[in-house]
Amino acid sequence: MAENQGEVKLLGVRGSPFVCRVVIALKLKGIEYEFIEENLGNKSDLLLKYNPIHKKVPVLVHNEKPVSESLIIVEYIEEAFKGNPILPTEPYQRALARFWSKFIDDKVFAAVRKAVFTLDEVEREKGVEESLEALQFLENELKSKFFGGDEIGFLDIAATIIAYWVPIFQEVTGLQIFTSDKFPKLYNWSQELINHPIIKESLPPREPLLAFFKGRIEALSASK
Amino acid sequence: MAENQGEVKLLGVRGSPFVCRVVIALKLKGIEYEFIEENLGNKSDLLLKYNPIHKKVPVLVHNEKPVSESLIIVEYIEEAFKGNPILPTEPYQRALARFWSKFIDDKVFAAVRKAVFTLDEVEREKGVEESLEALQFLENELKSKFFGGDEIGFLDIAATIIAYWVPIFQEVTGLQIFTSDKFPKLYNWSQELINHPIIKESLPPREPLLAFFKGRIEALSASK
Repeated sequence: MAENQGEVKLLGVRGSPFVCRVVIALKLKGIEYEFIEENLGNKSDLLLKYNPIHKKVPVLVHNEKPVSESLIIVEYIEEAFKGNPILPTEPYQRALARFWSKFIDDKVFAAVRKAVFTLDEVEREKGVEESLEALQFLENELKSKFFGGDEIGFLDIAATIIAYWVPIFQEVTGLQIFTSDKFPKLYNWSQELINHPIIKESLPPREPLLAFFKGRIEALSASK
Repeated sequence: MAENQGEVKLLGVRGSPFVCRVVIALKLKGIEYEFIEENLGNKSDLLLKYNPIHKKVPVLVHNEKPVSESLIIVEYIEEAFKGNPILPTEPYQRALARFWSKFIDDKVFAAVRKAVFTLDEVEREKGVEESLEALQFLENELKSKFFGGDEIGFLDIAATIIAYWVPIFQEVTGLQIFTSDKFPKLYNWSQELINHPIIKESLPPREPLLAFFKGRIEALSASK
C-alpha cells in the first residue's frame, strides 16, 4: 500500500470500460482500494449519496470525498497520489492527451454505440462510417508503442475501450469496424495494451462480457 | 506582455461563450494575443488546418501549436503561463472545478439549448425543467462570492455562459429559467461576475448578440 494513501473506495461495475479506467489508474499508482460492486438496476444508497447528480459509476471515494466522471477521476488520482505519472509533464502534451481522451468519449464511443446498439440500418451504417472516420484520426495520431510513449499514459487508459470492448462488440454483432488491416498501428497498440501486465489484471473477464452484450443486443431486437 | 509568452493567436467568433472562456483566461493571465475572427459560414484554411478534427472555434495557437476544446484550452493556458492561478492547487478542489465545468457543458448547456432552440412544445417544456434542475445543483454548490472563492476561477470561467448568455436567451424567447427569485445565490454571483473588470472587457457587446439570437430563433420558426 502506498504510504498515507488514506481510505480509497471505488463504486463500480466490473464490466464497465469507464470503471476500468479508474482501476487501471489506481493499479498504475499502486493504490490499494476497496471495490464496491454496484447493481445499476437497483442503485445503492451509497451511490445515490456519493453521486446524486448523475447516479452513475464509477465514483471514487477518497477519505469520504467522492469524485465522479472517469477521466476526472483519473486526473484526480494523478494529482492526489505521487509516483508513476500518468500525464506528461509538458503543457502541450498534456493538452493533447486530454483532447484525444475527450475525442474518444465524444466521438469514438458515440459512433461505436450508434453502430452497435441500434436496429435501424441507416443509423447503423452511419455509426460504422463515423467509427471508421474517428479511428482513422487516432491511427494517424499514434507515433509510439503507446500513446503515452514507451509507457502507458492518460490517453492509453482512456482508449482501453477501443482495445478491449470494441472487439467484443464486433464479435457480438458481426460488424467489422476495428480490424488489423484497416488500422494496423492501432491494432498493434491494442495488443500491446491488453497484454501489458497492469492492464491484463485490470480488464474484466471476456466471456461474461460477451454474454452480457449478447443479452443487450437480443433485448434490443426483442423490443423492436 | 508576459515575458517569453511566445506567439499567441486565438481563432474565434466574438459572440461565442466558448471563445469567451479563452479570452477571459488569457486576460486573467495577462497574455497578449492576436484575435482572428472566423466566419463559420465559410471556414478559413487556417481553421481547417489547426482544427481538422472538429473544425470549430475556439482554437488557441501557441507558437504554431494548436489546442482546441474551450475547457482544455483554459487548462492549457493555466499550465503554459505562470501567475494568476485559475485552478485551485488542492487535488480535490481541482477535481470539483473540472466536474462542475463538465456538468455545465453536458447538462446545463444541453438543457438550455433544448429549451431555447426548439419549436416543439413538449421538448421545450422538458428543456426548461432540466435547466431548472441543473441550475439548482449549481445554486447549492455556490458557497462564496465566486465559485473559485474570492477570485474568479476555472468554474466561474466555464459558467460565464449562465451569467451572460442565458439572460440574453431569456430576453429573446420570453422564457423564465434563470431568475433572481428562483436562484438568488446564483443570480448574485452572475452580477458580481459580469461586473468584474476582466470579465466586463471580455464579454461581447449585448445588442449584436440579442439581434443574432433573435435571428436564429426566427429562422427556426420560418423553417417549421
